[in-house]
Amino acid sequence: MSSVPRVAILPSATDDIARAVVEGGGSVVDIRDADALVWTDPLNPHGLAKLLGGSNVEWVQLPFAGIESFFDAGVIDPNLTWTCAKGIYGPACAEHALALMLAAARRIHVHARARRWSTLGFDSPEYRLEDKTVVVVGTGGIGTALVPMVEPLGMRAIGVNRSGRALEGAERTVVVDQLESVLGEADFVVVAAAHTGATHRLFDKAKFSAMKPEAWIVNVARGGLVDTDALVAALRAQDIGGAALDVTEPEPLPDGHPLWDLENCLITPHVANTWAMGLAELPHLVRRNVTARVAGEQLEGLVDPELGY
Amino acid sequence: MSSVPRVAILPSATDDIARAVVEGGGSVVDIRDADALVWTDPLNPHGLAKLLGGSNVEWVQLPFAGIESFFDAGVIDPNLTWTCAKGIYGPACAEHALALMLAAARRIHVHARARRWSTLGFDSPEYRLEDKTVVVVGTGGIGTALVPMVEPLGMRAIGVNRSGRALEGAERTVVVDQLESVLGEADFVVVAAAHTGATHRLFDKAKFSAMKPEAWIVNVARGGLVDTDALVAALRAQDIGGAALDVTEPEPLPDGHPLWDLENCLITPHVANTWAMGLAELPHLVRRNVTARVAGEQLEGLVDPELGY
Repeated sequence: MSSVPRVAILPSATDDIARAVVEGGGSVVDIRDADALVWTDPLNPHGLAKLLGGSNVEWVQLPFAGIESFFDAGVIDPNLTWTCAKGIYGPACAEHALALMLAAARRIHVHARARRWSTLGFDSPEYRLEDKTVVVVGTGGIGTALVPMVEPLGMRAIGVNRSGRALEGAERTVVVDQLESVLGEADFVVVAAAHTGATHRLFDKAKFSAMKPEAWIVNVARGGLVDTDALVAALRAQDIGGAALDVTEPEPLPDGHPLWDLENCLITPHVANTWAMGLAELPHLVRRNVTARVAGEQLEGLVDPELGY
Repeated sequence: MSSVPRVAILPSATDDIARAVVEGGGSVVDIRDADALVWTDPLNPHGLAKLLGGSNVEWVQLPFAGIESFFDAGVIDPNLTWTCAKGIYGPACAEHALALMLAAARRIHVHARARRWSTLGFDSPEYRLEDKTVVVVGTGGIGTALVPMVEPLGMRAIGVNRSGRALEGAERTVVVDQLESVLGEADFVVVAAAHTGATHRLFDKAKFSAMKPEAWIVNVARGGLVDTDALVAALRAQDIGGAALDVTEPEPLPDGHPLWDLENCLITPHVANTWAMGLAELPHLVRRNVTARVAGEQLEGLVDPELGY
C-alpha cells in the first residue's frame, strides 16, 4: 500500500486530475499498468465494468456521490476498494437547499411566474427565515454544510440520521425512527439523505400528515426518497405548504406530470450540483485520496457495498 | 428631556406598542396631551400633517424606513425631532437580497417558469456563490446585515458608501465616487442605499457598462436609484447578466412594461420587508427610543431633514 499508486484516468483525463495524482504522490499510467482508476464519467457504469474486467485495478475513484446506477449495473465489485465523491458536493447541494427555502419563504416561484404587480401590497405573506425550524434529514456532506449557512439567518436546525450522532450546530439530532415526532416542528424539511432500500419513499402519506400545513419539503438528495403520488396528493390537499424539488421520481419528470401545474411546487432540474461544480472539486479529492493511499490511511468517500452508498 | 415622555399612538394603537412605551418609561396619552407621537400608518403623510398642526408633539416616530412620501408631502418639520425605522428592516431586506442572488445563481426564475424538465442536464449553467463578489451599495442596516449572511457561502464583499467608513466584514469599502471602479469586480451589485437627490438614478447606462456581462443587479432599496430605461436597454443588450428587483420606478410596475417580459429579469413586488415583518420589530424600536428619550440620549433612526432620510 505504501508503494506509488499507478493511476489510470478514464474515459477522459484532464490536466487538473493528472496533476492531482502526481501531487498526491502517484503516477499516471495506462489502464494496463494501473492498480488504481479515476473514472470521470458519471453516466456510464457499463463502460466502467467493461474496463475493469481483466484489469489489475484495486481502487476505483468515482466522480459522483449518487452511485445507484453503478450498483444497479452490478459494477461495484466488493473485492475492490471504491470511493465516490460523497461529501464534496455537500456545500453545492446545501446552497441549493438554502436557495429553495428562501424561494419558498419569499415566494420567488410565484413572483417569477407573475406578469403583473401583485395587489397584496404590505399584506403580502412572505416571511423571514428567522426563528423558523429546519429538519435536516441526513447529516452527511449536505446537512453538515447547510447548518452554518442558515445560522446567520436565525434558523433553528434539527438533525435526523441513522445513528443519532449529533449534527454540529443543530439544536438536537434524532434517529430516523423518530422522524415523525420532529416533523411537526418543521417549517422546512430538507431531504439530504442517501437513497437506499431503507430510505426508499421515506416521505410518504404519514410523513406529510405529520408536517405543519405551511411547512415545505425541499429535496436535494434523490427523487426516490419521496413517494411522488403521496406528495401530489398532499400538495393538492394543502396538507403541506409546498415542495421544492431538485430531484424527482420519475426523473426527468415527464411532460404533463401533475407537479408541473401545482402553484405550491417549485422544480429545478437536478442542478443542485452541476458537473461544473463537481469538476472544480474532483482534483482536490483525487489528490487527497492518492496521498492517503500512499500513506496507507483511510480514503475519503469510501463506498460501503453493503449499504449501497 | 428627562421627564416622562407622553406618547400618543396613532392612527391605530396596538397593545405591543403601548406596552413598549410603558416599558421604556413613558406614558400613553391622547394626542392633545402628547409631547411625542408614534405614527403607525406607512401610507398617510397627510393624515399625520393634519394631526401635528396645533399639537405639542416634539418627537415623531415613523414606522417605516423609506419616508420620501412624507418629505414630499412637506410633513417633515425640521423644528421637530423625527425618527424612522431605518435599520430595523435591515435583516429582512438583506435576507431578500440573498434570496434574489441565490435565485439568479440557481436560475430559480427560469425554472419556476418552466413547465418541462430542462434538457441541459449536467451542463446546466447554475453556479455557486463561493468566491463570487458582491458590491454592496449602501452600508446601513441592509448592507450591514447582508455581509454575515453571505460569509458562510464563501462570498467576498466590497462596500460602497458616502464616507468610505469600513463595512464590517467587507474586503474593502470605497466612497460612492469610486463606484464605477469597483463595479467591474462585481458578480452581484446589491443596491441598498437611501434614495435621495444625490442617489437618484445612480445606476445609469455608464454604471451598467462598467459591470461584467454576467453580473446581476439586485435592488432592495428604492426604484428611483435605478434608471429603468437604461436598465431595460442593458438587459436587452445583455450588457449585464440580469436584474432582480424588489422595487421599481415606476412602482407598481405597470402591466405590459418591458421588464415583465425579459427572461433575465426577476421582479418581486416590494416584499423584502412586509408590514408583518416590520410590525414584529416596531415595538422593540419604540421601547429603545422611549428609554433613550427618558435618559436624554440619542434616538435610534434619527431623520436628517437636510439629507432627506
